Amino acid sequence: MTRPAPADVRTVACVGAGVIGGGWVAHFLARGYDVIAWDPAPDAEDRLGGLVDAAWPALASLGLAEGADRSRLSVVPDLEQAVAEADVVQESAPEDLDLKIDLLARIDAATPRDVVISSSTSGFTMTEMQVGAVHPERLVVGHPFNPPYLIPLVEVVGGERTSPEVVAWVSQFFEHAGKSVITMDREVPGFIANRLQEALWREALHMIDAGEATVEQIDASITQGPGLRWAFHGPMKTFHLAGGQGGMAHMLDHFGPSLKAPWTRLEAPELTTRLRDAVVQGVDDADGRTVHELVVERDRMLIAVMRTLQEMQP
Amino acid sequence: MTRPAPADVRTVACVGAGVIGGGWVAHFLARGYDVIAWDPAPDAEDRLGGLVDAAWPALASLGLAEGADRSRLSVVPDLEQAVAEADVVQESAPEDLDLKIDLLARIDAATPRDVVISSSTSGFTMTEMQVGAVHPERLVVGHPFNPPYLIPLVEVVGGERTSPEVVAWVSQFFEHAGKSVITMDREVPGFIANRLQEALWREALHMIDAGEATVEQIDASITQGPGLRWAFHGPMKTFHLAGGQGGMAHMLDHFGPSLKAPWTRLEAPELTTRLRDAVVQGVDDADGRTVHELVVERDRMLIAVMRTLQEMQP
Repeated sequence: MTRPAPADVRTVACVGAGVIGGGWVAHFLARGYDVIAWDPAPDAEDRLGGLVDAAWPALASLGLAEGADRSRLSVVPDLEQAVAEADVVQESAPEDLDLKIDLLARIDAATPRDVVISSSTSGFTMTEMQVGAVHPERLVVGHPFNPPYLIPLVEVVGGERTSPEVVAWVSQFFEHAGKSVITMDREVPGFIANRLQEALWREALHMIDAGEATVEQIDASITQGPGLRWAFHGPMKTFHLAGGQGGMAHMLDHFGPSLKAPWTRLEAPELTTRLRDAVVQGVDDADGRTVHELVVERDRMLIAVMRTLQEMQP
Repeated sequence: MTRPAPADVRTVACVGAGVIGGGWVAHFLARGYDVIAWDPAPDAEDRLGGLVDAAWPALASLGLAEGADRSRLSVVPDLEQAVAEADVVQESAPEDLDLKIDLLARIDAATPRDVVISSSTSGFTMTEMQVGAVHPERLVVGHPFNPPYLIPLVEVVGGERTSPEVVAWVSQFFEHAGKSVITMDREVPGFIANRLQEALWREALHMIDAGEATVEQIDASITQGPGLRWAFHGPMKTFHLAGGQGGMAHMLDHFGPSLKAPWTRLEAPELTTRLRDAVVQGVDDADGRTVHELVVERDRMLIAVMRTLQEMQP
């Protein structure tokens, strides 16, 4: 067994050193890992050095892990050399399905058979990508957000042939590595955050296309409005608080019918009793505090965020 | 002419003292206005006092305008008395079209004829609501976000019978009153921010309905991911930065086809050359800085927001 416990990982191989791969390199270095990187571009080492240079002051100011050191990065000329000694591999190649299938098969062939191989893909499922691997059970998606050295979220999901142990292992590894992990039960195109982002993005494009809003108005409507809350309270909690003391239950019972109003071009789901109850129960499961306690928190957080943003203005 | 210049407004009448109306009262008091409030509920004065009590420490910590004083609030027993001496009226009644039509007609009849009457409606157009007014030209939508004493955004839009001067006047007034104003050219159901929020909310409900994500995962996917950026960079600027050095143009030219992928249930608009160019030009009009400058800003802001949120954790 060559797979260490998630907490015992020392060496991470990063395959691909673009914006996302380079961001992973910076993150893992800052968390105190040895990092071995490979990228086919001839200037990969220089670009990666520049990327880590740019990110390091930020990472230092947020606090480095004990022993974290930029010199613990090696950039190697061969893919096989990069992955041979790794405790875990993070692949961040361009979003091209054939390329990902081939590359993951090559990584799979060169990596000791129990070592977990995680892909940064934002668009493909692991079921689609793992078809060329001899050991597909250790291939898993670990989808980060840009920039990976700052945004905590990683969405983890396996393919049809991924072992559940691998999904659990990589979720624990990312948590040890300081990420905020969502482990999905099933493959959904776009995972979770991108589906939500994409719904908003499509509606924005419709509005621009129809001359209903400008690019600037769309950005201002978020940064001066709901975006300020979304830094700490998600959309479900936000709607929970919009329901007053009755919370989400009041919100759904009262405003449910307006779901059918022509706001957005996205067709609304049928608000069945089952969905209504799942949402109300889900809000309670997610955070059992009262609406009043959450409102107090919201205002406290909002003021802190707004003050911070004010102080940061040039 | 009884309408003062936007900067000379002294007295604001707030009609309706629920969560939104009460939030407006707190905001206008904090900005140094005299506020006259009316609400048909028998306990309106007590509830309003409680609401202002709860909001005041937050407002004081953000900085009160010169002369701002909680004692400058009068709660009066008659609607007519509330609006008779006002320089501007803000209506925040429940979202019920017939109620809004009747109430706006009553306010219109009781308010000196040049005084601007703004409605907090989140769901109706002014064209629908101004049908009972004798002077509909001074009726306009000024839609705030909850809580109105903290979230800066106000969306301003007139109805078919609203005078363009009134739209301009109320936009300037809200800016003087410390709000961040988006003045819309035309009526769109849901205005701008709510259409975007609603697209995201509907996609979230679909995901919960299909068992693809839990309430908790949806909130975490935003607060640990894109929500952290949306507190200062809107969705358009976020996608601009996702395009690397090529920015939005690269993003659209490269990822345009993936718009048709089945991410979200919202049908994507056709990415015509016209739309592509409008978006690219719009991003440049909104903020002429280079991608590199914006990335530096993003990281600086992200770190500040994340540090603030860390420090605020109980």
